[in-house]
Amino acid sequence: MEYKAPLRDLRFAYYELFDGASLAELPGYEEATPDLVESVLEEMGKIATEVLQPINSTGDEEGCTFKDGDVKTPEGFKEAYDLLREGGWVGLSCRPEYGGMGMPHTVNMMVSELLCASNLSFAMYIGLTNGAYAALDHHATDELKDRFQPKLTEGSWAGTMCLTEPQAGTDLGLVSTKAVPIEDRADGGYRINGTKIFVSAGEHDLTENIIHLILARLPDAPEGIKGISMFVVPKLREEDGKLVPNGATCGSIEHKMGIKGSSTCVINFDDSIGYLVGEANKGMRAMFTMMNAARLHVGVQGLALSDAAYQGAVQFARERLQGRALTGAKYPDQEADPIIVHPDVRRMLLSMRAFTEGARALTAWAALEIDHSEASADPERRVEGDDLASLLTPVIKAFQTDLGFEMANLGMQVCGGYGYTHEYGMEQLVRDARITQIYEGTNGIQALDLVGRKLGAHFGRYLRRFFHPVNAFFEAEAGNAELEEFIAPAYKAFGRLQRATAWLAEQGMKNPEEAGAAASDYLHLFGYTAFAYLWAKTAKVAQEKLAAGASGDDAKFYEAKLHTARYYMQRMLPKSGALFGTIMTGRKPIMEFPEEAF
Amino acid sequence: MEYKAPLRDLRFAYYELFDGASLAELPGYEEATPDLVESVLEEMGKIATEVLQPINSTGDEEGCTFKDGDVKTPEGFKEAYDLLREGGWVGLSCRPEYGGMGMPHTVNMMVSELLCASNLSFAMYIGLTNGAYAALDHHATDELKDRFQPKLTEGSWAGTMCLTEPQAGTDLGLVSTKAVPIEDRADGGYRINGTKIFVSAGEHDLTENIIHLILARLPDAPEGIKGISMFVVPKLREEDGKLVPNGATCGSIEHKMGIKGSSTCVINFDDSIGYLVGEANKGMRAMFTMMNAARLHVGVQGLALSDAAYQGAVQFARERLQGRALTGAKYPDQEADPIIVHPDVRRMLLSMRAFTEGARALTAWAALEIDHSEASADPERRVEGDDLASLLTPVIKAFQTDLGFEMANLGMQVCGGYGYTHEYGMEQLVRDARITQIYEGTNGIQALDLVGRKLGAHFGRYLRRFFHPVNAFFEAEAGNAELEEFIAPAYKAFGRLQRATAWLAEQGMKNPEEAGAAASDYLHLFGYTAFAYLWAKTAKVAQEKLAAGASGDDAKFYEAKLHTARYYMQRMLPKSGALFGTIMTGRKPIMEFPEEAF
Repeated sequence: MEYKAPLRDLRFAYYELFDGASLAELPGYEEATPDLVESVLEEMGKIATEVLQPINSTGDEEGCTFKDGDVKTPEGFKEAYDLLREGGWVGLSCRPEYGGMGMPHTVNMMVSELLCASNLSFAMYIGLTNGAYAALDHHATDELKDRFQPKLTEGSWAGTMCLTEPQAGTDLGLVSTKAVPIEDRADGGYRINGTKIFVSAGEHDLTENIIHLILARLPDAPEGIKGISMFVVPKLREEDGKLVPNGATCGSIEHKMGIKGSSTCVINFDDSIGYLVGEANKGMRAMFTMMNAARLHVGVQGLALSDAAYQGAVQFARERLQGRALTGAKYPDQEADPIIVHPDVRRMLLSMRAFTEGARALTAWAALEIDHSEASADPERRVEGDDLASLLTPVIKAFQTDLGFEMANLGMQVCGGYGYTHEYGMEQLVRDARITQIYEGTNGIQALDLVGRKLGAHFGRYLRRFFHPVNAFFEAEAGNAELEEFIAPAYKAFGRLQRATAWLAEQGMKNPEEAGAAASDYLHLFGYTAFAYLWAKTAKVAQEKLAAGASGDDAKFYEAKLHTARYYMQRMLPKSGALFGTIMTGRKPIMEFPEEAF
Repeated sequence: MEYKAPLRDLRFAYYELFDGASLAELPGYEEATPDLVESVLEEMGKIATEVLQPINSTGDEEGCTFKDGDVKTPEGFKEAYDLLREGGWVGLSCRPEYGGMGMPHTVNMMVSELLCASNLSFAMYIGLTNGAYAALDHHATDELKDRFQPKLTEGSWAGTMCLTEPQAGTDLGLVSTKAVPIEDRADGGYRINGTKIFVSAGEHDLTENIIHLILARLPDAPEGIKGISMFVVPKLREEDGKLVPNGATCGSIEHKMGIKGSSTCVINFDDSIGYLVGEANKGMRAMFTMMNAARLHVGVQGLALSDAAYQGAVQFARERLQGRALTGAKYPDQEADPIIVHPDVRRMLLSMRAFTEGARALTAWAALEIDHSEASADPERRVEGDDLASLLTPVIKAFQTDLGFEMANLGMQVCGGYGYTHEYGMEQLVRDARITQIYEGTNGIQALDLVGRKLGAHFGRYLRRFFHPVNAFFEAEAGNAELEEFIAPAYKAFGRLQRATAWLAEQGMKNPEEAGAAASDYLHLFGYTAFAYLWAKTAKVAQEKLAAGASGDDAKFYEAKLHTARYYMQRMLPKSGALFGTIMTGRKPIMEFPEEAF
C-alpha cells in the first residue's frame, strides 16, 4: 500500500469549508497565502510518500534499541530526520527571529497530518520538539528563550515533556521529583532529582542534545497539584562553551504494543541543573500550554492513521478478487470480482472516509481558531478563538482517536487475514493508533475535562461559541429543500446535544458523579453532532460549487462529498440517539454496583 | 495480573440459567453429571492459572520460530502440551472406543473457555486437533477413522484445516490444489499437489505427526465450489510400520499481530498421498462440519479474552492509586483513591462484565443445543437443537468476537499507559483478540451467512426456534412487576429485531444488496437482543434464588447479577436502537457511491 497526501481534501477543508485565506491577513502571517501553503503541502506530501512511509514498517520491526543509556532509532530515521531538519521543517511554525519559517499553527497542523499518516513514530520526535518550543515560547524568560529556542527551531536539539512518575500519571499532584535552588549559581539554576517514566523521545540519536521540560516540586512547595513547577533541563549543559553531561540519563525504554520506532523512556535526573519556566508552583499552567497543543496534535494522529488505513484498504479492496457481487458478476471477464463490489466492504470504506474527512474539517476549524486566538489584531476575536479551541480540544483529542482506532480496525478488517500479517502494514496502523486513546491524558480524562471544566467555563461562554454558529447555520438553512436530507438529521442530533447538555448542567451540580458517568458518552455525542454540522456545511458548499458549474474532477469531488455526507447522516449519525439514551440513564447503573463485587 | 477460572459463573450459566443437568440424561453421556463436570472444570482451572497463563506472555515474546521446514513452539509449550495430553484433555470429547473421555461438547466448550482465556495461542493446537477429529468422525470411512482417530484422541498426533490458498480465501471455489487418484494403490490413495496458506498449527514440535484435512480438486471436478473435495493427508505416512515423510512440508510461517505462539503456516503438498473424506466434490459440506464447530469455539475465544481482560483490569483498578473520587476522598487514609471509584472506570468494567457473562450464557445455550442435536433419543429434539445452533453460530462467532475485541480494548484502557506496555499483558489480549474477528470466516461473512442462509432456511424454521421461546418468555413475564425494568427494554429490542427481520426478508427478496448492506448491523442487533433476553432471564433466576433465601456469597452473586442486568439494559442495549435505524436506511447510501471515487 502506498500513502498519498490528501491535498485536494486539505484544500477543501481549510480553504473552501473554512476561511484559510484569512490567515494571510493576520499580522505576522502575511506570507501564509493559499499558494504558498499549497506548495508547502505538496513538498511534504512527497517526503511523506517517498521518505517517511518506506521506513515506517521497517522502523516498527526493528524498533528502538537501548544499550548503556543510549537509544538507537531504527535504520533510516536519522537520515530522514536530517533531511527534514535541513529543509527547515522542524521550525516550520517557529518565530523567524529564531530562524523559524514563521508559518501559522494551521499549516503545522496540516503538515503534521502528513507526517503522522506516513510514519507516526517518526513524527513524534518533531512533535515533542515543537511542544517544548511552545512551552518555552509562552512561559520562559527571554534569556532562556535565547538559549534554547534557536536550537529547537533548527532541530539540532530536540525537546521532551517529562510529566509521569511511577506513582503519578493522571494525578500529577503526586509528582515527587525535587528541584532545589543552587545558591551559588549566578544563572539561577536548580538542582533536579527524580525519575520520570513514559517520556516520549526522552533519549535518541537524532540530535546532539535534548531539552527536557519537567514537572518538579520546590522545597517549600504546597502539597498536591498547586505545588508543581516547570523546569527546563538539558541533557547536556553548556559549560565553558562545551556541552557536558547534566545528569539526565535514560534508564531503560518500554516495550510497547506500537509506535515502536518512537522511544518511550525512563529518564533519571541526578543532580541535573535546570531552570524555572514560568512562575514557581504554577507549573501546571505552563504544562497545559504544551498539553493543549499536544492534544490537538494527537487528535490529528487519529485522523491521519484513519486516512492511511483507508488508502490501504481501498487499494486492497480494488485488487483482491474473491467471489462475485451479490447481484451477479460485475467483472465477468475476471476470475472473480474485486471485493469492493460488496456492500459490507463498502460500508467499512465509507465509514472510514466519512470519519477521516469529517475529522479533517473539525481539525481545520480548531486550527484556524487557534491562529486567530494568538495573532488576530482584534482582542475580541482572540478571546473567541481561544474559547472555541479550548472547548474543541478534548473533543478532537478523544473523539478523533476513539474513532481513528475504530477506523484503523475497519481498514484491517477489509484486508482479512492479510490485514493481520505484518507484511501488509495494516496491523501496524492499528497498534500505532491504539496509543492515541491513552497518551496526553486518556480519553476518559478528556471527557472529564469537557464536562467538568469546559462546559461550565465562564458560565457556558465556551459552549456558546459552538452552539451559536451551529444553531444559526441550521436556522438559516431550515427552509432549504435541497439541503433538507442533511439538515434534518443533523439538527435533530444537535437538539439531543442541547438537551443532554442542559441535563448534565443540572444533574452535575447536584452530584458530580452524574457528570462523570455521562462524560465519555457525552463527548462522543458532541463529536457525532459536530461532525453532523460539518457534513451538512460540506454538503452546502458542494451543492453551491456544483450549481456554480464545477466540472471534471472537481465535479466528481463534490459529488463524492454529497454521497459521503448522506452516508454519514444515515449510517453513522444514528449512534447519537443511542448515546443520548445512555447519557440520560445517569449514575445509578454505574455507581450502585458494589465495589467488592467486581 | 492473574487469571482465575470463573467457576461460579460457569455453574450459573450452564446449570441455573440452562439445564446442563439434562446432559447426563442423553444416551452415552450418563457420566456427565454436574458433579463430574464441576471437578473437570476445577482441574482445568488450576492448569489454566498455574501452567498455561504463565507461558502466555513469554510465548508471545518468543513466538514461533521457523528453520529449515521445522517450527519450534515457544519455551514451555511442549511441556504444557505433554501435561494436557497425558491428562487425557485432548480427547475430552472424543469417543471412548478411540480412548476418549466421551464428554459432551458442552463440557469441551467450557474447558475451551479456560484454555483460551489463559493462553489462546496454546489452545489453538488442541482446538485444531479437535476440529480434525470432528470432520473425520462425521465423514470418514471406518478404515480412516481407525487409522487416525485413536492418535488424534490421545493427542500424539495433531490436526489442521488446510483451506486457504493465495488466490482463494473467502472464495474457496477458487481452490486449485489438485488430487489425482493413484491407480496402483490398493488403499485408494490420491496424490495431492498444491500450496495452502494461513494453516493454523500447520507445523510444530508438539506431536510426532500432523494430520491435514485439505480441500482439493479432482481431475474431473466441476468448476467452482461444487468441485471441491476433502482429503486427509498426514505429514508422515505409515509405510512398513514406520512413519515416513509424505511430501507435506512447511514453507514459512507468518509474522502476525498476535497469537504469536500459534504457528500460521504455508504448507506445500508435493505428491503427498491422501485419502478422500466424504463424497467426491462434496468437500464443502464436510468442511462446514469442521468450520461450524470451529466458529463456535472462536466465539468462545471472544468471551474468554474479554474475561481475562476484565480480571486484569479489575486488579489494576483496585491497586492503582490516582486522584480522588469525584464526591471526595473514599480512602482518606491512602495517598489517593484507587481508580475503581471513578464512574468512567466502572463504566468500562461493567461493560466488560455484562458482555462476558452475557456471552457465557449465549454460549451455554448453543452448546447444550448441539449436544441435544447429536445425542438426543428424540429425533425432533435433535432437529430442534441443530436448527437453533445453526442460527446462533454466526451470531456467536461474530458478535462475541467484535465485542470481545472491544472489551479487551476497554480492559487495556483501564490500565492507561501501563496497558500499552507488553509487561502488563493487556495489549497482548488486544492483539490476540483481533484475529478472532477475521479467521474462520470474517465477521462480514458471518453476517452474510446469517441473513443469506440462516434466516430463510426452511421457510424461517431456524429463526422460529429462537423467536418462539423468546417471545413466550416475554409474554409470560409481561405482568411481572418485579421484572419490568428488565423485560420492558428487552421486549422493545426484540420488537425491533422482529421488524428488522421482516423488512430484511421483504427487501432482500427484491435486491440481495439490501440484505448485504444491512447484514453486519443486523447481526449486531440480533446479538444485542439475544443478550437482552438472556439478561432478563438471568434477572428472573436471580430474583427467584434471592426470594428462595439465597444467602452469603450466593446472595451477593445474585445481587451482582441484578446490577449487571440493569447496567446492560440501560447502558448497552440502547445501541440496538441505533442499529435498527441504520439497518432501515437500506442499500442506497452504501451502493450509490461511485466505485471510482473511493
